[in-house]
Amino acid sequence: MSDLPATSKQLTSNITSAGKLELTLAEVPVPDLGPGDVLVRVEATPINPSDLGLLLGPADLTTLSSDGTTVTADIPEKLMRMVQARIDQALPVGNEGGGVVIAAGDSPEAQALMGKVVGAVGGAMYSEYRVLPAQMCLVMNEGATSEDAASCFVNPLTALGMVETMRLEGHTALLHTAAASNLGQMLVKICLADGIDLVNVVRKQEQVDLLKSLGAKYVLNSSDPNFMNDLTDALAETKATIAFDATGGGTLGSQVLSCMEAAAQRNMGAYSRYGSDTFKQLYIYGGLDTTPTTLTRNFGFSWSIGGWLLTPFMQKVGGEVMNRLRQRVADEIKTTFASAYSDRVSLEGALDIEAIRTYNAKATGQKTLICPHH
Amino acid sequence: MSDLPATSKQLTSNITSAGKLELTLAEVPVPDLGPGDVLVRVEATPINPSDLGLLLGPADLTTLSSDGTTVTADIPEKLMRMVQARIDQALPVGNEGGGVVIAAGDSPEAQALMGKVVGAVGGAMYSEYRVLPAQMCLVMNEGATSEDAASCFVNPLTALGMVETMRLEGHTALLHTAAASNLGQMLVKICLADGIDLVNVVRKQEQVDLLKSLGAKYVLNSSDPNFMNDLTDALAETKATIAFDATGGGTLGSQVLSCMEAAAQRNMGAYSRYGSDTFKQLYIYGGLDTTPTTLTRNFGFSWSIGGWLLTPFMQKVGGEVMNRLRQRVADEIKTTFASAYSDRVSLEGALDIEAIRTYNAKATGQKTLICPHH
Repeated sequence: MSDLPATSKQLTSNITSAGKLELTLAEVPVPDLGPGDVLVRVEATPINPSDLGLLLGPADLTTLSSDGTTVTADIPEKLMRMVQARIDQALPVGNEGGGVVIAAGDSPEAQALMGKVVGAVGGAMYSEYRVLPAQMCLVMNEGATSEDAASCFVNPLTALGMVETMRLEGHTALLHTAAASNLGQMLVKICLADGIDLVNVVRKQEQVDLLKSLGAKYVLNSSDPNFMNDLTDALAETKATIAFDATGGGTLGSQVLSCMEAAAQRNMGAYSRYGSDTFKQLYIYGGLDTTPTTLTRNFGFSWSIGGWLLTPFMQKVGGEVMNRLRQRVADEIKTTFASAYSDRVSLEGALDIEAIRTYNAKATGQKTLICPHH
Repeated sequence: MSDLPATSKQLTSNITSAGKLELTLAEVPVPDLGPGDVLVRVEATPINPSDLGLLLGPADLTTLSSDGTTVTADIPEKLMRMVQARIDQALPVGNEGGGVVIAAGDSPEAQALMGKVVGAVGGAMYSEYRVLPAQMCLVMNEGATSEDAASCFVNPLTALGMVETMRLEGHTALLHTAAASNLGQMLVKICLADGIDLVNVVRKQEQVDLLKSLGAKYVLNSSDPNFMNDLTDALAETKATIAFDATGGGTLGSQVLSCMEAAAQRNMGAYSRYGSDTFKQLYIYGGLDTTPTTLTRNFGFSWSIGGWLLTPFMQKVGGEVMNRLRQRVADEIKTTFASAYSDRVSLEGALDIEAIRTYNAKATGQKTLICPHH
């Protein structure tokens, strides 16, 4: 393995005890391969909303500056308590990415990946090279590129995980907010293919049009004056009793539960001042709205709100289910799970101050791709 | 059974489509006994906070008036939509009560209750007589009175149900808000007896003193300036990760989850911007604070908030568990599960306008008892 790289550039983020964000490209040694490991040449790795939290923390981006190798910005003092646990650690960034396996350990599982295009979710993917256990890689089918593979984990498996959670918890239809996102579009396609009723909630007419063009049947615009009535109609028709909310803050989650309860009460017989016995589940999986969540609690006592994240879901359902979901992602990577990117940068380019401001402010569904070898 | 009453006075509550609350004493026939039924002469039945919702609805009590047989009050027009499902129905009131079995059906289970003092949760307990299935009655031990039995269901089984839920869901210590209530005092005694760490949250110094006098170890006053720090200390020490919140509204539930997360993070190794993986459960079982619930979501993604009610809990755990809990209530009805009453009224007295205003405004832990035969 003498031609293999000894070191790799790796993008790291540090928040210092002095209250500074520091981003830099570290030169780190490429570790030796264990029998089950593979060495991936990372060729494409997206900047997801879920990466920005780790990359930029609560930094004030108006204070960004660069000395050519290190980018710095101030962390507002009152926000430092949010990041206590990561102080003075240069943390590598990048949840997922796609690339080519250029070396493999001795085990058959690792050897089988030699030369293949893979997607991987391993953290530290904003690197030139990554050593990973073979089972963390998703092998693409013939004809797929590293760019196809770049976003094959987080959004595809989150969308599939939502549908799986719906089934596991005994619901038969679901609701999704911020539904015009890249993830939301995947969910529309999955539900159409699987014959599942999906109630999409968006905020703008052009998002309604986009999802309708994909074939979505139920698309509600929360800016419409009749939103609550129309949503109740859609929930009564679909009997959706589980919702995945990307916004987190504000009143939307509470409105969804209220409309689910109103839909359930339409079918109720006797009065109960405790509300219907229809169980309503709201999962918050993102925080696009950072204001507090406000619940009016006019939806009885048969409800639950919880956090939902991909990693605990994967641990809960186990290997067999995950293999089935991963295989579906590989088989449909150019259709259901295709991602589009609005622009591409190198690792160095990802540390350009204007680039940082641009990708941090991207609209829903717009993503920047880092290509470490360009 | 010729000496048995043919009719029974029964307190009913009706909200009319014209927007009026109407309370009256109906004279209803006492139904024939089935083989498994018993006839209970109701001697003591409490006015619980959970009864007031059905009894008074959202009526404006400043408009109360009486013609000697019917009490009326106005329902504010904008609140009528809250009570759509109960319009123009004279609903009987009274969740639970105590009395004596004066007749029984032919089955051995029913016959076994003849002459016994029982507690019962059957609804419509604000009546002189109630026919109930024998299995809905909890037989008191020798020496217990109808007044002892009056509150033997809702608060005792709710308190025991909380401890049982804690165990079933894998937690080892719990937190309770509004902890100086009648229910809260029972919970203190249960946890002391069972060796379970209980974190009590109250709002006033005299409530701290009351619970300390019962032997409670952890009592936090949410009005104290150091409340959040002290609560985090108590949660770190007890590892309580499940909370039962009677207030519902405001920020208290969110504060509890935040402090649980802070306690969990004290023991964490590596940083995760998704927070700790310690699962935190908040159950809302009451609505003392009717304002919206406000969640700041600074407690990671491993949490759940839900409604908790006694009836679904009982259905979930099934007969064997419930028999065990009921037997404990009977055995400890004069100690752990003793209730005190601040005043007593007759059925007619419960319809006195001043009495209504008084029992509706009762402080936490103060209860009125209706004695239908006095």
